[in-house]
Amino acid sequence: MKPTLPKGTRDFLPLDIRKRDYIFNIIKNQFHLFGFDSIETPAMESLETLSGNYGDEGDRLLFKVLNNGDFLKDVPEEILGSRNSNKAITHLSKRGLRYDLTVPFARFIVMNRQHIKFPFKRSAIQPVWRADRPQRGRYQEFYQCDADVAGSSSLFYESELIRLYDEVFDQLSLPVTIRWNNRKILYGIAESAGLKDHFNLITIIIDKLDKIGNDGVVKELESQAFDSKDVSKLMEMISTTTLPELKAKMQSEQGHLGISEMERVLSFLDSNGLKNELLFDATLARGLGYYTGCIFEVKAKDANMGSIGGGGRYDNLTEIFGMKDVSGVGISFGVERIYDLIEEKKLFPESVLGSKNTLIACLDIDSFGYAIKIQNMLRKLNIACELYPEPVKLQKQMTYANELGYAHVAIIGEEESRQNKINLKDMKTGQQSLLSFTELAEIICQ
Amino acid sequence: MKPTLPKGTRDFLPLDIRKRDYIFNIIKNQFHLFGFDSIETPAMESLETLSGNYGDEGDRLLFKVLNNGDFLKDVPEEILGSRNSNKAITHLSKRGLRYDLTVPFARFIVMNRQHIKFPFKRSAIQPVWRADRPQRGRYQEFYQCDADVAGSSSLFYESELIRLYDEVFDQLSLPVTIRWNNRKILYGIAESAGLKDHFNLITIIIDKLDKIGNDGVVKELESQAFDSKDVSKLMEMISTTTLPELKAKMQSEQGHLGISEMERVLSFLDSNGLKNELLFDATLARGLGYYTGCIFEVKAKDANMGSIGGGGRYDNLTEIFGMKDVSGVGISFGVERIYDLIEEKKLFPESVLGSKNTLIACLDIDSFGYAIKIQNMLRKLNIACELYPEPVKLQKQMTYANELGYAHVAIIGEEESRQNKINLKDMKTGQQSLLSFTELAEIICQ
Repeated sequence: MKPTLPKGTRDFLPLDIRKRDYIFNIIKNQFHLFGFDSIETPAMESLETLSGNYGDEGDRLLFKVLNNGDFLKDVPEEILGSRNSNKAITHLSKRGLRYDLTVPFARFIVMNRQHIKFPFKRSAIQPVWRADRPQRGRYQEFYQCDADVAGSSSLFYESELIRLYDEVFDQLSLPVTIRWNNRKILYGIAESAGLKDHFNLITIIIDKLDKIGNDGVVKELESQAFDSKDVSKLMEMISTTTLPELKAKMQSEQGHLGISEMERVLSFLDSNGLKNELLFDATLARGLGYYTGCIFEVKAKDANMGSIGGGGRYDNLTEIFGMKDVSGVGISFGVERIYDLIEEKKLFPESVLGSKNTLIACLDIDSFGYAIKIQNMLRKLNIACELYPEPVKLQKQMTYANELGYAHVAIIGEEESRQNKINLKDMKTGQQSLLSFTELAEIICQ
Repeated sequence: MKPTLPKGTRDFLPLDIRKRDYIFNIIKNQFHLFGFDSIETPAMESLETLSGNYGDEGDRLLFKVLNNGDFLKDVPEEILGSRNSNKAITHLSKRGLRYDLTVPFARFIVMNRQHIKFPFKRSAIQPVWRADRPQRGRYQEFYQCDADVAGSSSLFYESELIRLYDEVFDQLSLPVTIRWNNRKILYGIAESAGLKDHFNLITIIIDKLDKIGNDGVVKELESQAFDSKDVSKLMEMISTTTLPELKAKMQSEQGHLGISEMERVLSFLDSNGLKNELLFDATLARGLGYYTGCIFEVKAKDANMGSIGGGGRYDNLTEIFGMKDVSGVGISFGVERIYDLIEEKKLFPESVLGSKNTLIACLDIDSFGYAIKIQNMLRKLNIACELYPEPVKLQKQMTYANELGYAHVAIIGEEESRQNKINLKDMKTGQQSLLSFTELAEIICQ
């Protein structure tokens, strides 16, 4: 039998894990510094929790877990007889795999309300599963990485999340533009143009701007039989690039509220202190989603790649589970895309790529005990190392060291053993030197 | 709607995660020092990969994932008509959830043979899923934690794995007994007693010794109509407590091979150097399993708890996937039980339990900018901290700090802001002191 993997899933080799951990650890460290505590939710959730929260498309893409035992027993005859797969699901399956981290987070808050304090700042880095058609860069199992604050409407948190983006991408040496806008401003623009009744439709069309350009948007708007004066006004407003400019044109209470929200966020930021560009973009819409206030989207500079982060304020995080008035604001990092970008731009540091420290190569069985002693002493000093398991020919041990990417080989034979020394070979330069244990430890612990 | 979790699954709150990470990080660090590289395999595997490797019981406990789309379409009429759930599975489901880490590891080796070098040392810490009846301490989703070496029959690795257990449990401050034996010795004992044809049966009975005691084992053996002289010989041999003693009684080539394997492992260990007890136990059997050489089992001292680790040598790790002659040896850590033990014995260090560092409490809106500056400067020094998002009453902010377990609160009001100082409150002693930024950083970075 030749084994295979389910489509859209991946194995991660040691080097893949080192590279992924490099990214995860930078993010985790910033989550920690910013006070976002880590939580975990189970991979399986009740289908009742998941279904209906991701639209029809989402429901279709949910992985459902077959009930255990005699699952066919209780499926009504007419459903089996007509082979109605859709109707059969509720009888065959009670659980599904996590589709994102936001719905489980809302469920978590409601179920653990006695154990958490608001404002509740949480982070999560976990895999999610979607039965999407696999393609380059799109998998059926992939990681999401979120930071959210629940239970506070303070705009200070919007500024914190901008700072968090700024720090993480700075640490990753990946310059980005953080575009931001406010859903109330989008509404205000529609209202100012006399088109507030068509707000959702307008949002959908504006959201396409990246793809179809200015003319395309105008065309689509005019095809809706909107007054061309209104369309002009709309286009004029969304092309505004500064808040003061937009403020002067805004004729909507909601819109002014959105502007003042953004001004307040800015008051918490020393924008000169940011290392990345923060760009107001009146055309940013973030789909229809559940956002109600500020929204964010991050793109890498000088890269042909979609957004690598996004988020915003949503006023009713937990309403779907019957708990009202819990405002949330959060961002996510598109870690799979970030990985691809860092790979493409060759930004993984040398220490991650060739990270194995020292292989100990022993040349004869009589010196093996001495070699074991050296290994154990190095580990006591927190230096990662391993002894090749047999005193075979040096050539074979060097090949192994090379293939695994070891930086050093500590060679031990009769002579070294007698002298209580170690012959250290630098695998890059090829240089070899006879050292005492202290000298050895000093060199390789760097 | 009141949300629920599927039975046997758990949420982990921030404190749970800190405690779990404390254990995982100690293990991960030793994996790293010992040269066991981390890999990851997907949560979903083909049912073809999983089925048939865990016995009938295991097959029943596998979680199967329902095919997406119109899954009922291709189920043969007679299967649906007769509601034969067992036969329906292959038509309804192609994927299952990972049941352990060993079968995926074997699959990983076979599929990635071009990318790995033998001996291949890998570690993995990932959740697995089993549809077991949930009960205290038993979950449907739980973590496994394994280290294995594949592709080498060197007994040096047995000694390394003993050392790895020793180091990890020492770091966890959890004294243990590492019991060990060798499957060849068990066979040799059966052979010496003239009962080698009943080796499997004898293994099963000996395995019950813990539960039914010596007399129970004798009774069961005699009920098999074995010669009572043979049973006496068997009992005499399994009660042997040292290798030299056993050697003198052993009348089996296999048995002597097992003894010399264990002696060789000991030659690689400075057993005085071990911090935990390593105990030869001729009655240790580790079930029927696939083990062929040395076997291990770890129990905590002074604790009423089953084994918290186990493993051994298996000669044909990848044979199920058509790749022969890959010998493996590995151990696993029962991390869920280890967690329960450390909790019970109150061994989690103070720094894990009350680990949040500093909350900054600002008392008036005019000082807010100064408070933000202090927050950002502290983070630059890698000190985790957060500013309460609004300048509300101090009482409210102190309550929040208390409930989240903050060690310090840095209070900033009009006076502090004017003087460019910070009023630091130690939450344990209640002591308060007016400090410069440098003094503050020095105190809280400890």
